[in-house]
Amino acid sequence: MPALSLSQASRIVDLALEKGRAINCMPLTVAVLDAGGHLLALKREDGSGILRPQIAQAKAWGVLGMGLGGRVLAERALAAPAFFAALGDISGGRIAPVPGGVLVRDENNDVVGAIGISGDKSEVDEICAVFAVESVGLKADAG
Amino acid sequence: MPALSLSQASRIVDLALEKGRAINCMPLTVAVLDAGGHLLALKREDGSGILRPQIAQAKAWGVLGMGLGGRVLAERALAAPAFFAALGDISGGRIAPVPGGVLVRDENNDVVGAIGISGDKSEVDEICAVFAVESVGLKADAG
Amino acid sequence: MPALSLSQASRIVDLALEKGRAINCMPLTVAVLDAGGHLLALKREDGSGILRPQIAQAKAWGVLGMGLGGRVLAERALAAPAFFAALGDISGGRIAPVPGGVLVRDENNDVVGAIGISGDKSEVDEICAVFAVESVGLKADAG
Amino acid sequence: MPALSLSQASRIVDLALEKGRAINCMPLTVAVLDAGGHLLALKREDGSGILRPQIAQAKAWGVLGMGLGGRVLAERALAAPAFFAALGDISGGRIAPVPGGVLVRDENNDVVGAIGISGDKSEVDEICAVFAVESVGLKADAG
Repeated sequence: MPALSLSQASRIVDLALEKGRAINCMPLTVAVLDAGGHLLALKREDGSGILRPQIAQAKAWGVLGMGLGGRVLAERALAAPAFFAALGDISGGRIAPVPGGVLVRDENNDVVGAIGISGDKSEVDEICAVFAVESVGLKADAG
Repeated sequence: MPALSLSQASRIVDLALEKGRAINCMPLTVAVLDAGGHLLALKREDGSGILRPQIAQAKAWGVLGMGLGGRVLAERALAAPAFFAALGDISGGRIAPVPGGVLVRDENNDVVGAIGISGDKSEVDEICAVFAVESVGLKADAG
Repeated sequence: MPALSLSQASRIVDLALEKGRAINCMPLTVAVLDAGGHLLALKREDGSGILRPQIAQAKAWGVLGMGLGGRVLAERALAAPAFFAALGDISGGRIAPVPGGVLVRDENNDVVGAIGISGDKSEVDEICAVFAVESVGLKADAG
Repeated sequence: MPALSLSQASRIVDLALEKGRAINCMPLTVAVLDAGGHLLALKREDGSGILRPQIAQAKAWGVLGMGLGGRVLAERALAAPAFFAALGDISGGRIAPVPGGVLVRDENNDVVGAIGISGDKSEVDEICAVFAVESVGLKADAG
């Protein structure tokens, strides 16, 4: 099954928010994109900043764009800042190279989508993202 | 309570999709924005086109930007095409002047957000939007 | 005296808003730019839509950009829609070719700035703009 | 009253400029935005540079976008330059991560808007911003 359904995407968003509440996160925004980088489902919690929808989507889009989890993107951005500055322009501002962007893979290891979370520290955002993806029986590739 | 909560926004999105299924709509994308034009919740049904998230958001953003429902915006765009072409540029492509963008007002008639739906004919999108807003006890201003 | 001072610009903004209240306008946004097209003063009344600051500035910027009042720009946009669509792109979305953008000229007829108003019908916006400019002893060139 | 009124925003702008004159600041530009990041009032003093309106607005928009004062944003930008370069692109150039952007909070600690000042050293800009917000009885959150 190659495509992520809205039903799965919605479930992932809700599970990520539940996890965030369970571990007392700051107000989160969670976005799930399909493999083509197009938004399937997004929720922004009360009090989550007005740029968070763009950041969450850019975390998810960036991992799809490069085919690498946000953790790896963050390392590469540190090692090659000029290239990642260029990627920001090349992508039209759709890449956020930090943890919290996670590839969603199926049982064949094929990429079926991505999740991006913004609101707390990047490492905490990532915990919620990984939890939600694995809870629906898919693989979370954080990089 | 002046602000639209995520809980309300999510409920509006789900009700709009339920309505869409009940009346056999084409696959829909539904976006709910706060009064400042920032995304609170969005869902895109399986088979809904990859530009639909942007269109749904632009329907909702446009009614907030102008303070007028999508039905009125559509009439004005017909009467003043050059101005609306300019508005597209001025807003950075965030206005879709067609039915299906609906202002959400509270009991004091204050604008607390907007809903935009894209996927079926604009008039049908609007039916789902109005239904969802009214079902949660808020006022739908379609223009 | 070639430049418009902040003191004059602020006075123009306040007079335009006073006029708007006196003739029961919809909530207005008023912007005054210097001759270089850069913002000097802006006020947005409570209830004036979130795109109004951009529209008011685009009305003022457009008249400076073309050296013609908004009334003339509106006529030309009607006669040459493709050219004005191109102007929207060329200017990066900084032109709104409608009444309500008014050049501010000094006693030598030199352009010292521009005012743009958005919120009511364009013709009504223009009345407030012309009134405010003339009230501080400058010339209003509405086109 | 959750929203910042134009009356409050105008008073904050004028107080910030008065403070600037009292402590002999360079010519300042002061912008006040509502909680959704939309301009309410702006004044640019004679001699304040032509980019200052954009910088002042970006200081204010950035603190709203991230929900953090400019002082904190400046520290984080220093620690994570690649991420903040990405944020510049993601936000469409609407973030200036330096002191002088200050969140405006009400008595419940809710964010009701933001002020951004540009023209002097960032730390001096911030002094004027904090003074103005506190002078109208609101809370200034500089980070």
